[in-house]
Amino acid sequence: MSPFFVSRWVPCPDHVKELGGEGLPAGFRAAGVAAGIKASGAPDVGVLVCDAPAATSAARFTASGTQAPPVLLCRERARLDALRAVVVNAGNANAATGRPGFENAAKMQGAGALIAGVREDQVAVCSTGVIGVPLPMDKITQGIVGASHALAADGDAAFSAAIQTTDAFEKRARLQVTLPSGTVTLTGQAKGAGMIQPGFATLLVFVQSDAQLSAATCDLLLGVCVRRSFERVSVDGQLSTNDTVILQCSGTSGVAVEPETEDELRFGEALDALMRQLALLVARDGEGARRVGRVVVRGGEPGTVDAVARAVANSPLVKTALYGGDPNWGRIIQAVGAAMPGTAPLPVDIAIEGVQVCARGGVVAHDAQALAEAVAREEVEYEIGLPGDGAETEVFFSDLGHEYVTINADYTT
Amino acid sequence: MSPFFVSRWVPCPDHVKELGGEGLPAGFRAAGVAAGIKASGAPDVGVLVCDAPAATSAARFTASGTQAPPVLLCRERARLDALRAVVVNAGNANAATGRPGFENAAKMQGAGALIAGVREDQVAVCSTGVIGVPLPMDKITQGIVGASHALAADGDAAFSAAIQTTDAFEKRARLQVTLPSGTVTLTGQAKGAGMIQPGFATLLVFVQSDAQLSAATCDLLLGVCVRRSFERVSVDGQLSTNDTVILQCSGTSGVAVEPETEDELRFGEALDALMRQLALLVARDGEGARRVGRVVVRGGEPGTVDAVARAVANSPLVKTALYGGDPNWGRIIQAVGAAMPGTAPLPVDIAIEGVQVCARGGVVAHDAQALAEAVAREEVEYEIGLPGDGAETEVFFSDLGHEYVTINADYTT
Repeated sequence: MSPFFVSRWVPCPDHVKELGGEGLPAGFRAAGVAAGIKASGAPDVGVLVCDAPAATSAARFTASGTQAPPVLLCRERARLDALRAVVVNAGNANAATGRPGFENAAKMQGAGALIAGVREDQVAVCSTGVIGVPLPMDKITQGIVGASHALAADGDAAFSAAIQTTDAFEKRARLQVTLPSGTVTLTGQAKGAGMIQPGFATLLVFVQSDAQLSAATCDLLLGVCVRRSFERVSVDGQLSTNDTVILQCSGTSGVAVEPETEDELRFGEALDALMRQLALLVARDGEGARRVGRVVVRGGEPGTVDAVARAVANSPLVKTALYGGDPNWGRIIQAVGAAMPGTAPLPVDIAIEGVQVCARGGVVAHDAQALAEAVAREEVEYEIGLPGDGAETEVFFSDLGHEYVTINADYTT
Repeated sequence: MSPFFVSRWVPCPDHVKELGGEGLPAGFRAAGVAAGIKASGAPDVGVLVCDAPAATSAARFTASGTQAPPVLLCRERARLDALRAVVVNAGNANAATGRPGFENAAKMQGAGALIAGVREDQVAVCSTGVIGVPLPMDKITQGIVGASHALAADGDAAFSAAIQTTDAFEKRARLQVTLPSGTVTLTGQAKGAGMIQPGFATLLVFVQSDAQLSAATCDLLLGVCVRRSFERVSVDGQLSTNDTVILQCSGTSGVAVEPETEDELRFGEALDALMRQLALLVARDGEGARRVGRVVVRGGEPGTVDAVARAVANSPLVKTALYGGDPNWGRIIQAVGAAMPGTAPLPVDIAIEGVQVCARGGVVAHDAQALAEAVAREEVEYEIGLPGDGAETEVFFSDLGHEYVTINADYTT
């Protein structure tokens, strides 16, 4: 397992240590098996079980108006604050499948409850893959039963493999977190930015810990960390029908993380670092990406800086320039202006990798050669200054290159 | 000159006849010359003059917050209702050039006034090309002087060539329009979707007629037609710093188009068809495009249908599917859901080329082979039905393919 904290933008906190290898926090077991949903024969059904009856949890889902049946099911029929098991399939998103799709998600939930020995409302269901195709329920059910026989404390790598689609690499972490009250383990598995068939990138994220948190603390920390991680990442600006993030805490370590304590602060920092690095890995794996950009916008108001940051991060012109290693700041100022209509003339400042190229809306003489070298690296940072000092935000984004087109266009149903 | 009305989406009105060839309406002269701004040596300075002292006009500009100096100059220092001349350069957008850029735009306006023999405030100035590089004013001035010697009644093709950047084909039309009160000529030249250096697609559109319209009628008709044409087109969702559309009427034909008459209705229909077809040609020439899509959204409210149509038209997943000739409607429903967060479950209907694939949010059995053949044609239509019946809109869009990436990434400064 390669090092997890690989970006300069997400340093590993001092009280966090990478464990490497395999193994879930105490109280968890997982498995991943091949059920024949993916044509490739790769693993495609994953099950994650928490054996602690008092487990707490929290979840977040896509805001899409066309949420897939598994998402609707989780929201309507799961105790999201006390999840004991998660059942996932890859290769088919069970999206745009109507009432039969909802019934199939319910069958998955029922099968999960059966093998985990918990109530149905303690099981979350997730699907990822092609949209608009009915789930092959025989294979799904056989997969869930097969996974039940393979559940193991070190099943996180197998589970992680089973939730992937065409992810180019694993997005998985095992962290030891030292809190004032004791040491806990924090693990996470994410998939995203891949394609199994012409469908689209779905984000699934699962995080586990043996720390003891109230459901309210789970929800609070997950909410803050999602906003700072997965909500700050864009591969192609496309909100999925199936996005799901679930945090589960078994409490098995006996280390209690109480509200408004140093324990909570430190646990939150570790969770934040874990989720930010997972989010960055998703951007890095984004549809054939070669480089990752970070745009930081300062000034103006919260709504404005977010709109500007997303306009830059989602501009195909900025993304192709990032891919080409091209210090083309004209595309940055174009995107800024497009996001702030009716404000001309706007005194924008722009710096790329610390080199100021634009001040108050006009070009600044700079070392073009040094800039060209800086934007040819794997990570490129863009800083944008707007009038005022009311807000600051960031968005991480992947580039847009030939591999993106190949994955998304040259792959016909 | 190839036929102009080539799309099934823009039929030629019965009272309109394509003239082909070259030649401006009575009262206009134009020229295009090579001034050495483009490295290729291609024409890059165009001048258009209306010799009728009573000429009327109207203009529309980009709403960008980072409007280029030529746009700021036109808005601040031009009589947009009585323009006599237009001076354009390609190869350099004179954008993000600050105060010196504004002064250079003013010099272009002054040179235009001198050679046209009109007041400075009767001259519009446009630039297109790379952003953030000072204009080479010696070349520009020499180009304007050179163009003044070449001004001719049949200079529209030369003018059209001089405003292009890397447009793959000419976007120019000559129409004869039969009105109840007489016959008039309507011509138009557009450029867009091209790159001269790593910059971005800028849209410039010039329309001329020898009909006699009040400035108020010019403005009314141009406003309506811009909303129905160029504002319904997206190549990559990127609003430019330099977009400019100018309509000029010389009145030389003596055919008066009075408000609220059959003449106005018929003239408006011709102008509408001209501008819609020019807009479609821009989408078709969009950065290496292979296919053009039209998304029609019905139901809901005006704001919602527009957001949904643009979400579909600007989705890189939809655009790559269009490029690949892939009937991937899962990407359509994903984009619809993303544009309408918080509304799940949303009963969406989707049809592609008349084949219904999704009803009330769930898949509908359909002839996949027939659909695959339909989406492999040059134009593909997507129809989306939302709950309600309050609104309807359309957006035309180009696909996203390898040529787009090549043009925008593999072309380094």
